[in-house]
Amino acid sequence: MKSISEYREAFTAYLDLKVKTKEPENLYEPMEYILGLGGKRLRPVLVLMTSEIFDTDYKKALDAALAIEIFHNFSLVHDDIMDDAPLRRGNETVHERWDINTGILSGDAMLINAYQLFESYHATTFKELAQLFTKTAIQVCEGQQYDIDFETRDDVSIPDYIRMIEYKTAVLVGASLQMGAIVANTSASCKKAVYEFGRLLGIAFQLQDDYLDAFGNPETFGKQVGGDIIENKKTFLYLKSLETSEKNEAAQLEHLYTISPADNSGKIEAVKTLFESSGAAELTRMEIQKYTEKAFEVLEKIDIDEARKLPLKHFGELLMNRDV
Amino acid sequence: MKSISEYREAFTAYLDLKVKTKEPENLYEPMEYILGLGGKRLRPVLVLMTSEIFDTDYKKALDAALAIEIFHNFSLVHDDIMDDAPLRRGNETVHERWDINTGILSGDAMLINAYQLFESYHATTFKELAQLFTKTAIQVCEGQQYDIDFETRDDVSIPDYIRMIEYKTAVLVGASLQMGAIVANTSASCKKAVYEFGRLLGIAFQLQDDYLDAFGNPETFGKQVGGDIIENKKTFLYLKSLETSEKNEAAQLEHLYTISPADNSGKIEAVKTLFESSGAAELTRMEIQKYTEKAFEVLEKIDIDEARKLPLKHFGELLMNRDV
Repeated sequence: MKSISEYREAFTAYLDLKVKTKEPENLYEPMEYILGLGGKRLRPVLVLMTSEIFDTDYKKALDAALAIEIFHNFSLVHDDIMDDAPLRRGNETVHERWDINTGILSGDAMLINAYQLFESYHATTFKELAQLFTKTAIQVCEGQQYDIDFETRDDVSIPDYIRMIEYKTAVLVGASLQMGAIVANTSASCKKAVYEFGRLLGIAFQLQDDYLDAFGNPETFGKQVGGDIIENKKTFLYLKSLETSEKNEAAQLEHLYTISPADNSGKIEAVKTLFESSGAAELTRMEIQKYTEKAFEVLEKIDIDEARKLPLKHFGELLMNRDV
Repeated sequence: MKSISEYREAFTAYLDLKVKTKEPENLYEPMEYILGLGGKRLRPVLVLMTSEIFDTDYKKALDAALAIEIFHNFSLVHDDIMDDAPLRRGNETVHERWDINTGILSGDAMLINAYQLFESYHATTFKELAQLFTKTAIQVCEGQQYDIDFETRDDVSIPDYIRMIEYKTAVLVGASLQMGAIVANTSASCKKAVYEFGRLLGIAFQLQDDYLDAFGNPETFGKQVGGDIIENKKTFLYLKSLETSEKNEAAQLEHLYTISPADNSGKIEAVKTLFESSGAAELTRMEIQKYTEKAFEVLEKIDIDEARKLPLKHFGELLMNRDV
């Protein structure tokens, strides 16, 4: 088995080989551009790693890994249009560098291209991969729709929120692992188990991301700390605060989520104080812990040698031990 | 075999049964809306008809037919955003009725949903359908990109233009026929031949559509006659005119394609006069005839009973004998 960074290198080399601009340039250049911006390549690494865990050369999983990465980048291109985001990974977003129409159309081509990559597999494997991919892709769209809907809804429940992050983020992590297992042609129960591990870890990761957005170390957290608070995002921290706060504090928090001061630092500090005093910060840490533990429990139960599980365990620990 | 209108009814009943709004509503309502606006349902009818031509109950082809119709409507939703079109089939476009983000996201879900419909077929048929679908869908995106590029290019050749309409329109007609043939599990040569018939007929149809846009009967042509001229669209008529005109007339035509008068009727008449005097109108009619004849020649050569070919011949004749 290779290390995470070795899988990443092998994947990046394959991506560079396969993703090349062709005619018409305006359709394919944005695709090469966004895929070339880097990113952690976590999902494709998981596909490759899982195929080797189940005794199959990672090279056989490269096309599935590339499909997942292209799909992920398709969703970034379209989401960035919807969010009117100027930057992605420190560079201009596709619709900023070109225009909205280019973002829409090259995104569409990327989504179709992802399916195309499964064509190197035999019919039964092809169908299994495409079916999982379709189910997942539809959920990602539904998750994005829920996320948009939440902006204007004032009755978002915590289960609603968990489902949103599950669909928008976690199912693609689960699908990445399952695709490696499908390529390796392992048992149905193993396929299901690795999916579940990925899904639970994905939820834990997204909850942690929300937590770090408020309480992370500005020097090591990749994004602007407090960004969700500035944008009045109804995250787990916010919803949990409303749930556990006294009436007065809840009203105060709701009020803070209606204002947009020129200098946000006061608002950010006030909101964070309420997140702490309500107990929501602590409850969020517990929720992250709960999902992480659930994920590792699922991993424990998979009926393969302990040694084979180590790369996934290691991956999960690395992912969850970010600087809090 | 059923008549075209019987296939259309059977298809519409199936569509009504299958396409229902579910949660999240803002994702699925636009899909039900655009698919409910009607249209001629030519592509799904071709899928059903072709499966019966090759001895297979059309009911087996309903999912493939629905996939094609949903894909076609996905492309309309995204194209309408790109073209900033307010109306579709006499009703508000999706992005007008909702907003651009809704149009992007529900379009994405429709594209994915199209793939999902192939899942009712066994693995080998599934792969064959999905592979043809992917190839076609990529070409439709490329065709749309060429169409956008042509707006700002002044070196569009006639082969460039033919390829654009082939990709944007004709390949989906070919794919519709081939999908019926795939579901019927007929020979590779029959699958190829019906695709070719559809592709050639599709090019003829689109050339005719361009021709009718200038010379059609305003009372029976569905769209505004002269619309392409108002929008300075580089159609076959325009490109052929430039090619065959004397220098002076060519310059005059190019000039007319730079002005936007408040009342367009003078411009439309002047352009049409140049289309006629250059011989381009006649040459376009000949080109339509050429592609139509080529299509019927391909049909002739298919190795099945003449009687079985009649529905396709009838369909082709109906399509091409619109009021000129």
